[in-house]
Amino acid sequence: MEQNFRIGLIGTGRIGLVHAGSIADTKGAELTWVCDPFIEGAERISAQFGGKITKNPEELFASGEVDVVVIASPTPTHVDLISAAIDAGVHVLCEKPIDLDIVRVDALRAKVAAAKANVALGFNRRFDPQFEEIHTRVAEGDIGILEQLTIISRDPAPAPQAYIAVSGGIFRDMTIHDFDMARYFIPNIVEVTAVGANSFSDYIKEEGDYDSAVVTLRGDNNELITIVNSRHSSYGYDQRLEAFGSEGMLYAQNIAETTVAKYGKAAVEARKPYLEFFLDRYAISYRRELGLFLDSIRSGTQINPSFEDGRAALVLADAALESARTGKTIDVRGKLS
Amino acid sequence: MEQNFRIGLIGTGRIGLVHAGSIADTKGAELTWVCDPFIEGAERISAQFGGKITKNPEELFASGEVDVVVIASPTPTHVDLISAAIDAGVHVLCEKPIDLDIVRVDALRAKVAAAKANVALGFNRRFDPQFEEIHTRVAEGDIGILEQLTIISRDPAPAPQAYIAVSGGIFRDMTIHDFDMARYFIPNIVEVTAVGANSFSDYIKEEGDYDSAVVTLRGDNNELITIVNSRHSSYGYDQRLEAFGSEGMLYAQNIAETTVAKYGKAAVEARKPYLEFFLDRYAISYRRELGLFLDSIRSGTQINPSFEDGRAALVLADAALESARTGKTIDVRGKLS
Amino acid sequence: MEQNFRIGLIGTGRIGLVHAGSIADTKGAELTWVCDPFIEGAERISAQFGGKITKNPEELFASGEVDVVVIASPTPTHVDLISAAIDAGVHVLCEKPIDLDIVRVDALRAKVAAAKANVALGFNRRFDPQFEEIHTRVAEGDIGILEQLTIISRDPAPAPQAYIAVSGGIFRDMTIHDFDMARYFIPNIVEVTAVGANSFSDYIKEEGDYDSAVVTLRGDNNELITIVNSRHSSYGYDQRLEAFGSEGMLYAQNIAETTVAKYGKAAVEARKPYLEFFLDRYAISYRRELGLFLDSIRSGTQINPSFEDGRAALVLADAALESARTGKTIDVRGKLS
Amino acid sequence: MEQNFRIGLIGTGRIGLVHAGSIADTKGAELTWVCDPFIEGAERISAQFGGKITKNPEELFASGEVDVVVIASPTPTHVDLISAAIDAGVHVLCEKPIDLDIVRVDALRAKVAAAKANVALGFNRRFDPQFEEIHTRVAEGDIGILEQLTIISRDPAPAPQAYIAVSGGIFRDMTIHDFDMARYFIPNIVEVTAVGANSFSDYIKEEGDYDSAVVTLRGDNNELITIVNSRHSSYGYDQRLEAFGSEGMLYAQNIAETTVAKYGKAAVEARKPYLEFFLDRYAISYRRELGLFLDSIRSGTQINPSFEDGRAALVLADAALESARTGKTIDVRGKLS
Repeated sequence: MEQNFRIGLIGTGRIGLVHAGSIADTKGAELTWVCDPFIEGAERISAQFGGKITKNPEELFASGEVDVVVIASPTPTHVDLISAAIDAGVHVLCEKPIDLDIVRVDALRAKVAAAKANVALGFNRRFDPQFEEIHTRVAEGDIGILEQLTIISRDPAPAPQAYIAVSGGIFRDMTIHDFDMARYFIPNIVEVTAVGANSFSDYIKEEGDYDSAVVTLRGDNNELITIVNSRHSSYGYDQRLEAFGSEGMLYAQNIAETTVAKYGKAAVEARKPYLEFFLDRYAISYRRELGLFLDSIRSGTQINPSFEDGRAALVLADAALESARTGKTIDVRGKLS
Repeated sequence: MEQNFRIGLIGTGRIGLVHAGSIADTKGAELTWVCDPFIEGAERISAQFGGKITKNPEELFASGEVDVVVIASPTPTHVDLISAAIDAGVHVLCEKPIDLDIVRVDALRAKVAAAKANVALGFNRRFDPQFEEIHTRVAEGDIGILEQLTIISRDPAPAPQAYIAVSGGIFRDMTIHDFDMARYFIPNIVEVTAVGANSFSDYIKEEGDYDSAVVTLRGDNNELITIVNSRHSSYGYDQRLEAFGSEGMLYAQNIAETTVAKYGKAAVEARKPYLEFFLDRYAISYRRELGLFLDSIRSGTQINPSFEDGRAALVLADAALESARTGKTIDVRGKLS
Repeated sequence: MEQNFRIGLIGTGRIGLVHAGSIADTKGAELTWVCDPFIEGAERISAQFGGKITKNPEELFASGEVDVVVIASPTPTHVDLISAAIDAGVHVLCEKPIDLDIVRVDALRAKVAAAKANVALGFNRRFDPQFEEIHTRVAEGDIGILEQLTIISRDPAPAPQAYIAVSGGIFRDMTIHDFDMARYFIPNIVEVTAVGANSFSDYIKEEGDYDSAVVTLRGDNNELITIVNSRHSSYGYDQRLEAFGSEGMLYAQNIAETTVAKYGKAAVEARKPYLEFFLDRYAISYRRELGLFLDSIRSGTQINPSFEDGRAALVLADAALESARTGKTIDVRGKLS
Repeated sequence: MEQNFRIGLIGTGRIGLVHAGSIADTKGAELTWVCDPFIEGAERISAQFGGKITKNPEELFASGEVDVVVIASPTPTHVDLISAAIDAGVHVLCEKPIDLDIVRVDALRAKVAAAKANVALGFNRRFDPQFEEIHTRVAEGDIGILEQLTIISRDPAPAPQAYIAVSGGIFRDMTIHDFDMARYFIPNIVEVTAVGANSFSDYIKEEGDYDSAVVTLRGDNNELITIVNSRHSSYGYDQRLEAFGSEGMLYAQNIAETTVAKYGKAAVEARKPYLEFFLDRYAISYRRELGLFLDSIRSGTQINPSFEDGRAALVLADAALESARTGKTIDVRGKLS
């Protein structure tokens, strides 16, 4: 019989709500505890999806009623919560990034590696059906040898200044998803070259951050990965990926809200071009993420993406920042192993 | 405060299950009774979605615990169930068609017109976001005066012979949705011309039915509506619509499962072209159908589509059959008023 | 060595100019005579493309300097000119239609059948690369057995009233191309059902003609062919074709002027949707038509499309008119053999 | 009256033949001289398009019968031929690049600047209707402020080793078109960052050249330009461009040979995805290039693209090579003024 999991949720903001919905929709998963120091958030989630509430993560871990914890609290709390979960023998699905500081991440590395509990990172895009289809077809050899990966990734609008100030910068906060997507296809990156720019936002510039960036990665088989980022996009969330191989190219176009096209005197046009931000665009991937993690625990297979994947993305983000600031290509081989 | 509705469901087959899901997803709706002479069906639905069960519709109507009944039982039961619901003061959402025999429909007509209870017909495609978008834009004048409507409607695969035998024929069973779609845009049809063919199925021919058909309708403003039907389609459920007006054309392409395209040596191709049959393709429309009906009851606005819409579609289906058999265009003006 | 042909051109209007260009571009073809009672037209063509000029077709045929004549003069002259060409032993490429009166066409039939000279009809669309690709793939079995053919064919704007008055009506003047396209795929048509409408043009109505029409043909293998026509189209020349078979569907979309798309706040749009009228849309097909006719003469292979194809299209047009006027399906088997 | 030009053509290889065709198709242009030391080439062009022939450019310039010379000979001859043309008072349309050595280009710079004769560079892609449409719309403000330009540019197959050996490398030979395209939109580039790779070709590696590259440019208004190159592409010539602005994005998709799509059981596919190499893809741009140059001479307007544009593209190519070799971003401000 299939193993059921009692799930605890820490953090009840926008992304916490997404995870609560996933837990409710996932067979073999039951929301038993909801934790947030802002207790009204926990109450709201509990009222809709069930579970006991607490302000204190320690109470959650001590309850003995949680098999898996979903960490959706602010980034600075992640490292301590992962550590506490391991101590309690509780599996972890932690939102990205692990931390903004690689030193803190590295301090936790050995403990995670030795833990009986599994730690998965919430790089949900790996579970997007479009990107997964491309990944599967590349793995099957559908386009021969993979030579180039091109990721266009633009957010609809920048986060507010207060968020930018503590975000860790565009590479650690936004590009980090693209770094993981790159590594989903080409795990071993050897080199990072990044260019950042302040193209449109004064307040992002004030915070010493870039609003636009282009990153070029080199894989260990001489693949070239290009990431084009912008913190805004007037036409909606722009999330495209193309895998170019020796025998063909696979291209994931954005997802449109409608197939209706108007053929008029001056133009052919489709209204409402793209799905809004990530909660819509990646809704399916968030749903699949939890179920596949539980499946991995049940079957004892490799956790994907893992704590190490989370660390690797952060290493690439740090290297990108260094490259953008110094105008030099950064060799990351020593840092990724 | 919003009025809540206690919902009874009669019929627990494939489409009954869809409605049970809609009830569960619709705010202000609660499934209180599930009825099916095949009681295991009722038990299964009840176990998943709640509600008391019965083999007998009379028990459901007599309970006083049902405000709205969803009739998803076989077609021959519809007329009697609608009648019983009206007697019980219960609102009705009835699956199409009302009946295969216009005489039985007409016998119920006056009772429905005089009833305090509302009767809606389950022509769910009116609630498909794509078709609704076109309808709205046509109404807004986005393509000037509507002149032509072209509906391509092909099922993935024909129903089995046993079903065909009692289906009432392609026009009453399959095209009836397209007749309602035509009337969604152009309510007043004056003339029906139909051509049927046996292009591929021996068993459909044995039952004296067509497997393929083309119907041309004329609207009272000289619009021409073309419906192209096939009972099979190797590439999946083919549901397209184009509205052609004096100032432009609106076209609803089929919905694809993926936006991923492969650019290969010989071709550009996208796998898995279309959504499967109606439960996938029209999932959203089924969900919206119930909620919008409840809204209409609450606000006292015109029920859409109504019993009269159900009757009109049947009149068109009968005329199409007569036209296909006689090779003559049928004037339906006298029959539709 | 390849046989060269001396070409005479009769008629120097819009379509005559197209043929003059084709002659100039076709290897092994030389324009030797240009004939038009409006001699300024002949002078203009001759100045640009060469050839002697005359007002009188007899002079052209008597010259002994013409191997092939292209007849691009008004329809009422076609029958006599074909006849004169046969008498002179000159091959003929004649613009459609042969004549508006089937009696006159039939009177010429035996003579054409017995002639040494070849007579081809100018149904250029058979040489359009898109439609030809579909034809080839259907013939190769790419979509299994052909069951349905759907042709959407809309002109950008109606001809002026004076032209409509002598055009022979929409079926003989405009739909005739679609009838030939239908027969390109399914040569043996058994039945014609047509519905005409006056949807937008007062002056077309005054002339007793339709501005819009839908025609359903049945093939001898129970194929259903649907033709949707309008004399106007605000978004340009609308020329689409879909071949539906047991194993798939082939669809020829219109040809756009640009692939550039704009992704804006409210819509994705491509400017300048379609190619203008037939001179642009079918430019390549006109070019290929002449060369392939000359190739057929050289190799002694079947002329395509032939005089008989021209006659068959006219029979279908006459049947469509009769059907539209009487509201009855017309059996054309006796008339097509 | 419009000024006519007598055109001399130097070089009769593949690209020389393209120019001969352009001259023949351009009103007000006459091919008077054809020059190639390989005299059979000149004879062949002359036989088809007219003009006297010579092995010696000096004879062409001394003839007094040439107003404009099109230089389509090997790159090492360009500088001397431009110089000789200026001495003879003959306008020049020179194929790219001016030279592989910036020192030789700079030595010619003052002479060109002072010359009465005009010197245009053959960056034909500026005259591609798709890219020009985007350029026009960007200039009109259709997408607000231009922030990012993304160019995907992949050749169908690499040139043979012998050509690679003398090509000057991927940046000077292939990317140079993309550098000019970047400058067509954003003339003032301040910074070049390039990454090269050997992803598939052993012989390109042997020649010390890259077969793949990604280049990031920064414009003086903080625009980021990304160029993705490969020397091969299994699905044909891949030439896409996207202009991303504050108010929208304009995207030029590749040009397909056919609009025909097949909807089959497993996939939707379009055969023969893309136009072959540049002679097909850019046929129109080559035709327009000459005519627009002659128009500029007639009207005395700015030559576009000019000798300085040719020089700038070479400066960017040299910087890209330096960046790829050193792993450092190169500031090009001093070199471009």
